[in-house]
Amino acid sequence: VNDLLVKIRNGSFRAIARAITQIENSDDAAMAIVSKLYKDGGHAHIIGITGPPGAGKSTLVNELAQLFAANGEMVAIVAVDPSSPFSGGALLGDRVRMLDLSNHPRVFIRSMASRGNLGGLASATAAVVHVFDAAHFDSILVETVGAGQAEVDIANNAHSTLVIEAPGMGDDVQSIKAGILEIADILVVNKADRRGAMRTAKSLEMMVDMGQAIGFGHHMPLALRKEMGETLASQTWRTPVLQTVANKGEGIKELYDVIGSHRRYLESSGEWRAREENRSRREMERLLQERFFASFQDVVPEAVRTDLVKAVVRRELDPYGAVNHLFERYKR
Amino acid sequence: VNDLLVKIRNGSFRAIARAITQIENSDDAAMAIVSKLYKDGGHAHIIGITGPPGAGKSTLVNELAQLFAANGEMVAIVAVDPSSPFSGGALLGDRVRMLDLSNHPRVFIRSMASRGNLGGLASATAAVVHVFDAAHFDSILVETVGAGQAEVDIANNAHSTLVIEAPGMGDDVQSIKAGILEIADILVVNKADRRGAMRTAKSLEMMVDMGQAIGFGHHMPLALRKEMGETLASQTWRTPVLQTVANKGEGIKELYDVIGSHRRYLESSGEWRAREENRSRREMERLLQERFFASFQDVVPEAVRTDLVKAVVRRELDPYGAVNHLFERYKR
Repeated sequence: VNDLLVKIRNGSFRAIARAITQIENSDDAAMAIVSKLYKDGGHAHIIGITGPPGAGKSTLVNELAQLFAANGEMVAIVAVDPSSPFSGGALLGDRVRMLDLSNHPRVFIRSMASRGNLGGLASATAAVVHVFDAAHFDSILVETVGAGQAEVDIANNAHSTLVIEAPGMGDDVQSIKAGILEIADILVVNKADRRGAMRTAKSLEMMVDMGQAIGFGHHMPLALRKEMGETLASQTWRTPVLQTVANKGEGIKELYDVIGSHRRYLESSGEWRAREENRSRREMERLLQERFFASFQDVVPEAVRTDLVKAVVRRELDPYGAVNHLFERYKR
Repeated sequence: VNDLLVKIRNGSFRAIARAITQIENSDDAAMAIVSKLYKDGGHAHIIGITGPPGAGKSTLVNELAQLFAANGEMVAIVAVDPSSPFSGGALLGDRVRMLDLSNHPRVFIRSMASRGNLGGLASATAAVVHVFDAAHFDSILVETVGAGQAEVDIANNAHSTLVIEAPGMGDDVQSIKAGILEIADILVVNKADRRGAMRTAKSLEMMVDMGQAIGFGHHMPLALRKEMGETLASQTWRTPVLQTVANKGEGIKELYDVIGSHRRYLESSGEWRAREENRSRREMERLLQERFFASFQDVVPEAVRTDLVKAVVRRELDPYGAVNHLFERYKR
């Protein structure tokens, strides 16, 4: 392991790939690797990219990564697929973009799929981000097909969150999800050469204005910021709406510049540190939950758990009563 | 409370509404109510409805509920909005369909939004379903805007899961999420009077065929069924693809009939019971997790947790080490 850690710190792609495979296969390996490497990290800009299927996220991430690399940065792409928690989500296989970037010396690409539960995927993704951070990558692009919880996990793990839409996908208020306003630092209308792009961009601008009026100016809503005991920074960030045509490379340079501006905003406003705290807190909650379940499974035999499930199905016991029983048994 | 329970068993809408409000506001109330009412349930057909924003789910659920009611059934609609875990997701407010059904004596409508975490929402939704079940509702339609974990939660809570798409939303393989194959019992292309409906339906049919070839014939994948110690039922269910135009009432009768067929299939194949087991198991896991966190917060002071988060942010400690420390402190 120590040899592997030295190689990761030196940025060996092969060592990083081995570490990621170990993290995916075992929580113990994740703990062994991260607990040793964690102190080497803390420098990378973690950028979350999410949006509905078909918005062209992969192509956009591809183009962005090439631009980062062309500017001399080390960049990692982690493509997370939470859509198929049962089968492992491998139906689509690896991505077309691999062809462009697979041999680039400053770009590392990895896709990760859920292996049974979303919580486990989130923890594994966080561990992989720590590895890239310790290996001195400058930017880590975490892409997910998303809606609902997956999007929120991305936002909680990232310094900057990009939400990608396409024309016609979200023109009426009903189909633009309210939640994206709360997680997006930068909104992108990709495929902007298609009909309706301007209308989609205008709808999004309107929603940003509405959102600011009701207090979303910052990434985190007021309630959460208060919970964290923070005062509002004097600087604010108005979520910009950009247009891109990723498959022709249009608008990518502008997006790249805005991402840089957002990083500078985070650092100068104190928001970077607030997000680091939020990220660490969420990661610890997830790990604590996993720790409890592992401990619970050690203490309470599978047969006891299964018998209680069957009693609940037969309506001899209600779910709350059954859980009281299980928890008492765990604690004694 | 006892008075309330009697009234719920007698199907009083006002009592049900009060119980739901109490469940939303407090986990203790949820426990008090469900532990008393749970034994009265077990008869309702729980139908999950999910799909992307803009597919017309609300209109479809509306039409379905009217048909159930016209056939003499008591029907409940629970519209779950997990999209906005920060603000409570009230941006869109209550739904247009309320106007049609709000005074119908056999239809009860309730929308629920996330109050901070998806797990809490799932537990509250399950508790509300138990209330409707105990109040002798025949069908409970649980609708969610979904993708990812929200969809899976729906599938794990329902006997029958409908996935609603619209033309052009999922024509290329990349944009149809692999996960829907694994949760859909019935696929619906709504807005089927729009251009491209046939193509979308054909794409979905092809995916169902592919899915069957790789072993998805049943709702639950083989691995999960094996885990539950089940042999495959001799009967199988091939996920049908239906077309509807909900806002004109077209195709609703056919969908209603297919939902009935699916219920009969579940009962005759033994799958009904398997799903009840799965549902109870998931509900108990969620409640156990909530029980642990409540207990943890009692035992480990907030100040200790916050100090550790700050130490992790300063990289004096790694997240795994911090969690070990917290868990040891909890256990001692």
